Amino acid sequence: MRPKNQKIILKSRPNHAVSNEHFELIDDNIPNPVDGQVLVRNLYLSLDPYMRGRLKSGKSYAEPQPLGETMLGGTISEIVDPSDSHFKMGELVVGMGGWQQYATLSSGEVRQIPKDGYATYHLGPLGMPGITAWIGLINIGQPKPGDTVVISSAAGAVGSVAGQLAKKRGCRVVGIAGGALKCKHVVEKLGFDACIDYKSHSLKSDFKDATPDGVDIYFENVGGSLFDLVVSRLNPFARIPLCGWISTYDNQELSPILSLPILLTMRAKLEGFIVSESPQLFAPAMEELSELVMSENFHHEESISDGLASAPEAFIGLLQGANLGKQLVKL
Amino acid sequence: MRPKNQKIILKSRPNHAVSNEHFELIDDNIPNPVDGQVLVRNLYLSLDPYMRGRLKSGKSYAEPQPLGETMLGGTISEIVDPSDSHFKMGELVVGMGGWQQYATLSSGEVRQIPKDGYATYHLGPLGMPGITAWIGLINIGQPKPGDTVVISSAAGAVGSVAGQLAKKRGCRVVGIAGGALKCKHVVEKLGFDACIDYKSHSLKSDFKDATPDGVDIYFENVGGSLFDLVVSRLNPFARIPLCGWISTYDNQELSPILSLPILLTMRAKLEGFIVSESPQLFAPAMEELSELVMSENFHHEESISDGLASAPEAFIGLLQGANLGKQLVKL
Repeated sequence: MRPKNQKIILKSRPNHAVSNEHFELIDDNIPNPVDGQVLVRNLYLSLDPYMRGRLKSGKSYAEPQPLGETMLGGTISEIVDPSDSHFKMGELVVGMGGWQQYATLSSGEVRQIPKDGYATYHLGPLGMPGITAWIGLINIGQPKPGDTVVISSAAGAVGSVAGQLAKKRGCRVVGIAGGALKCKHVVEKLGFDACIDYKSHSLKSDFKDATPDGVDIYFENVGGSLFDLVVSRLNPFARIPLCGWISTYDNQELSPILSLPILLTMRAKLEGFIVSESPQLFAPAMEELSELVMSENFHHEESISDGLASAPEAFIGLLQGANLGKQLVKL
Repeated sequence: MRPKNQKIILKSRPNHAVSNEHFELIDDNIPNPVDGQVLVRNLYLSLDPYMRGRLKSGKSYAEPQPLGETMLGGTISEIVDPSDSHFKMGELVVGMGGWQQYATLSSGEVRQIPKDGYATYHLGPLGMPGITAWIGLINIGQPKPGDTVVISSAAGAVGSVAGQLAKKRGCRVVGIAGGALKCKHVVEKLGFDACIDYKSHSLKSDFKDATPDGVDIYFENVGGSLFDLVVSRLNPFARIPLCGWISTYDNQELSPILSLPILLTMRAKLEGFIVSESPQLFAPAMEELSELVMSENFHHEESISDGLASAPEAFIGLLQGANLGKQLVKL
């Protein structure tokens, strides 16, 4: 009997917190590749905060995820039917295979990766999160040796790379993460100079102690009240790459920001960015990221949930900060 | 009898609104120029919003105005004692003569200006406010023909120049000002395409109607709730030169900002700046400002109060938006 293609579709749009009920696991036929397509079997699915934005129907930087359609997402996959492409059976590729077991993808939209045991790095430090970290930190942040760089969501897929890049560039790096265990990981494994637990009652004084020379770069993934905290210690000409604002993706609170006038008095620059809009930076980013990943002290952590059916729970966990490092689903 | 030098000193620092009681008018002797100095008689004093920031003792971009000392400020003055400098008696100079009738200034820190009847322009479109407008609009804003440019405090010294520069660059220009009379001035005299009265009950819909194609550049002088209003209509890759935040200079309200996540979704850039920190831009700025001022439709408005003793009232009025165009004091 021909195997079925299990997939997860978006059943309804969340108004507030995302829950299981917004998704549905369904069986479908395995699609046949048409001209220019290959058929792949997905091995690993990448879960990323940007997916939360696509669940909304409103104006954003990406088209909304269509209702009733397979959830979009990056994947590591193997070629099961190369069709008329130059790919061979069993080759590994990275692409947008989605929340499903099989996918047909344009052969021009997948990229072969080596079978070296590091395939999933192409969904992490050598993929979209890594390039995001590079563009934010290097292109917008313009780090100089000795700068103090603060990174929220420091234990996450983007923050962990941004912090290690900043260390490579000679900066003092202070992470912000949720909980003592994550902070321990950020300092001991990722090599940050310090990490502040945003759940701590002494958050404000902890942060002050960790940034004796103020803040030159704030790589922002979280937003909300953390933004005001970090901005209160900005140095003149500080740079704020605005990468995410995960604290309000669920619209549970509006998080009023009080510190905008400080951006004026400190002549600071804040800039929102989306990795896919700077393709001209991919090559220099990949060059430095490859160096970083090959360096002796580099550390990459993955949280891997098991099976397609676990994807919604893992995604909800990601939005709540349950993961450590890159969140993947093994299919 | 030798004339006295009347001057206004800062008597105490305002915690909230500035009032007359924070200043004191005193008599002093006319100072004698020492080596390298000239003695000037001030003809016009410039009043500017940045002075409010200097009244605070806290961390800001400028040193606080010292208590008990003559209020600092830009002036148009005539040379009454050139001492050993190259200046001649009666020549006009622009410099930082302060809130007083006579001042000794380093000859290197004053600049001669022509006696052409446009002397006060050097405290306006051809001076600090004009260069501020140029740096914010041109250097940070990067206007392109067809861009929609929104300017708060549009009838003020900086906003009026920024708007006319934006028109010169082929932009659609929408001002925001307080009251119907100011708005009429902004459209009819300054040539903006539209002007929105922020005191209007239909502010939100007025603004939407005036920006049918969204907002590409927001030249921010005011802040507070206007910031959220304008940001709600930002286009992708919008630029926000952050020039002032006059709505809260008096600390009467904290003006929570709710729209920061929009800067992310719109990949917008916000940048605070101070004119004095970009001296390398003064030459290109002055070149275009001179062209602008010479152009047929250019309009420059001045509100001139009479006599040194009127300076505190005029300054308080400036902070409350009572002035139209550049606020000066005729000494």
